[in-house]
Amino acid sequence: MSTAPDNAVRSYIEAHRAAFLDDLVEWLRIPSVSADPERSKDVARSAEWLAAELSATGFPIAEVWQTAGLPAVYAEWPSGDPDAPTVLVYGHHDVQPAARADGWDSEPFEPVVRDGRMYARGAADDKGQVFFHTLGVRAHLAATGRHAPAVNLKLLIEGEEESGSPNFAALLRERADRLACDAVVVSDTGMWSADTPTVCTGMRGLADCQVDLYGPDQDIHSGSFGGAVPNPATEAARLVAALHDEERRVTIPGFYDDVAELTDRERQLFAELPFDEASWLRTAKSHGVLGESGYSTLERVWARPTAEVNGFYGGYTGPGGKTIVPASAHLKLSFRLVAGQDPAKIQQSVRDWVADRLPAGIRHEITFWGTTRPCLTPLDHPALRSTVRAMERAFGKTVRFTREGGSGPAADLQDVLGVPVLFLGISVPSDGWHSVNEKVELDLLLKGVETTAYLWSDLAENWQR
Amino acid sequence: MSTAPDNAVRSYIEAHRAAFLDDLVEWLRIPSVSADPERSKDVARSAEWLAAELSATGFPIAEVWQTAGLPAVYAEWPSGDPDAPTVLVYGHHDVQPAARADGWDSEPFEPVVRDGRMYARGAADDKGQVFFHTLGVRAHLAATGRHAPAVNLKLLIEGEEESGSPNFAALLRERADRLACDAVVVSDTGMWSADTPTVCTGMRGLADCQVDLYGPDQDIHSGSFGGAVPNPATEAARLVAALHDEERRVTIPGFYDDVAELTDRERQLFAELPFDEASWLRTAKSHGVLGESGYSTLERVWARPTAEVNGFYGGYTGPGGKTIVPASAHLKLSFRLVAGQDPAKIQQSVRDWVADRLPAGIRHEITFWGTTRPCLTPLDHPALRSTVRAMERAFGKTVRFTREGGSGPAADLQDVLGVPVLFLGISVPSDGWHSVNEKVELDLLLKGVETTAYLWSDLAENWQR
Repeated sequence: MSTAPDNAVRSYIEAHRAAFLDDLVEWLRIPSVSADPERSKDVARSAEWLAAELSATGFPIAEVWQTAGLPAVYAEWPSGDPDAPTVLVYGHHDVQPAARADGWDSEPFEPVVRDGRMYARGAADDKGQVFFHTLGVRAHLAATGRHAPAVNLKLLIEGEEESGSPNFAALLRERADRLACDAVVVSDTGMWSADTPTVCTGMRGLADCQVDLYGPDQDIHSGSFGGAVPNPATEAARLVAALHDEERRVTIPGFYDDVAELTDRERQLFAELPFDEASWLRTAKSHGVLGESGYSTLERVWARPTAEVNGFYGGYTGPGGKTIVPASAHLKLSFRLVAGQDPAKIQQSVRDWVADRLPAGIRHEITFWGTTRPCLTPLDHPALRSTVRAMERAFGKTVRFTREGGSGPAADLQDVLGVPVLFLGISVPSDGWHSVNEKVELDLLLKGVETTAYLWSDLAENWQR
Repeated sequence: MSTAPDNAVRSYIEAHRAAFLDDLVEWLRIPSVSADPERSKDVARSAEWLAAELSATGFPIAEVWQTAGLPAVYAEWPSGDPDAPTVLVYGHHDVQPAARADGWDSEPFEPVVRDGRMYARGAADDKGQVFFHTLGVRAHLAATGRHAPAVNLKLLIEGEEESGSPNFAALLRERADRLACDAVVVSDTGMWSADTPTVCTGMRGLADCQVDLYGPDQDIHSGSFGGAVPNPATEAARLVAALHDEERRVTIPGFYDDVAELTDRERQLFAELPFDEASWLRTAKSHGVLGESGYSTLERVWARPTAEVNGFYGGYTGPGGKTIVPASAHLKLSFRLVAGQDPAKIQQSVRDWVADRLPAGIRHEITFWGTTRPCLTPLDHPALRSTVRAMERAFGKTVRFTREGGSGPAADLQDVLGVPVLFLGISVPSDGWHSVNEKVELDLLLKGVETTAYLWSDLAENWQR
């Protein structure tokens, strides 16, 4: 089998580009926010929409899979070739919360195109990146003259990734027979930049939780009682402050015990990337770097675990002042984890640490949301080489290697299905994941289409069982 | 001049009790919340209502005084006796914020009477305690047969006490001629308990502020950037945590420099009060004591300065989790001050301390609301003796001495007008100041009426210029 000629792929994509983007807009209009219970029907609607779209694309099998939480979408397109490898594409159709009032320039669920970018919640994370597989497989067929893909193609698009995938591992175990594959391609990551295409080789894991502290039975007068009773907001702040020492290392006992430390070669690969701190800070919309002593910025976000407070609230938050000792205070904490760390063990360490640090008179509850295991792909895996070749044809440039600081269920796929996990993502850091004005670069989105058009042929040809 | 016979005072009060309470209910219905700019018209309405009520009571002069902020009410009733001392009664007609949704059993601005208690925001703090002076002066006249009070009686009822009295000192300076007096009686304090009538001899001061911390220009993905950029919520928490050392002493440099330390006699007077920690904790609706090492609970709330976080918010506070580094975090801090401490100096210390502690990449703003100076009355002042005698007649019990942990503009009155300040309050700790279900005990409210009916005669008779 020969690889698809570039011109046939590109002209097919150009001819179908407008309809492809129209369809994506329709999907992005569905506010499939998995963290908000009031949006659960929208998540279900998003799943139904996608299953119908995959049927229309040509997948003979396209189903909505219910879970204990929110539904996933599964689709399958057999190759017909008995020797073809089986590839499972992973993505998610749920999105982060978003509201115009957060500071968006346009409605987050009314996509608009400006200057070659499509702005909408989910444009990059992750609907756009799921969607390039629809036109990608069509372009692959058109260019090769095949009626079915060169690989047995399966898609699993979950609906709870932004909520920590609480039911994903169970779904994988339950449906392991149908999901059986030789490799997973995760399309939920990014590249270094539009000019420097890269393949991601690892993702951080996540354990996140809410800590609720309760002091007085109600807000009480800070003059009458202040200074003599424990204040839950003070204690909450002391917890957050105690998470890090002066070297900004996490202080929770055992936190670093199982961390896979960076090798010299990995540190070298990171150091070779064209990293410019000023530019990175602009993308981060931040005004300074700060993190664990002894590590570079890239090492901190890609290969070091963190403790972060994502939000807090308690007491009086209205206009002016109110001199009370608050009844309660609430923290949203998240812990990014790296290869070697076990989320369940970290959860227990956090529980123990919180319980040990609170004074008498403060009651607490701690609720963990879903966890995500960290993940690391071997740099020399042959399927990774296919991915790099397909990207290099689409982008016309040398592809380098990165990791992602974010989290995904890649490790569950790796663990439950027992196969290597590859990452194919075309998002760039300025896409504004989880932020206001999230967007996708349309040129890169179409490079994603093109990459997959080449990838299935390359994989089928070069796969080594 | 002889003191008024008790029976005449009591029968007068009994005859007018119902109308008195009806009028109070009408006033409590006005939501005069000074901290909320949207309530400024209600504060103005409260002032107009009170001025009209004082006219109806018989005060020949009753005026609304505009300030740079919210209006005060002034009333005057000359004695006619050229030797009569002049007494200025101080109180306030603004109230703390309140909403049914905070957990009130009934609407905070729809007063209800249950079991001899009237529940409403402001019932005890401070409308009820201002209001006993209306029936009190009438009872004083009825029982003595006078047509004007035995003292030159002035009332100054401000409208910004719950916002830290930002314009009160300026008002006092501007109107110093008309406010000239021999002593001030502050009715904005409490007693030990219904069974143990007490006179307050000091109040803590207050300096409170909002600290706003800004990090990234918008919320950013904690996976992509977390661990390498400063998080304003983390830095806000580190500020709060750093306010106290492990002995729960405030760490801000110079904070204790000017504190008037307790004398052995004062510690002895505190220790003689029938303090029961379990009972005090029930009133505080708290489940443990915690405060500065080396001091008792009463010493902590009456005679030691504090640093308290009254509220905080930042980042994601909705349902579930959201893995962001927040763009901003906000703290509401208050500092209770004791005799000797200068609020302006403390403000500067706080400003310097905050500015010194923040890392690069975190911008901050700090906004101080109004300040209140601490205050302490000499235990052996003759006017204090008159107050004690009047209370002992009304209550039929020995009156003891306390302080208040709360704050009031007593020190401004003392400083600007250059006269001693006495405290006459009938509220009890369970009245729920600044809290849900604020109430006033009707029996005690009428004891307040009775005390003032005796007080003006006693003061006129025993006053020593």
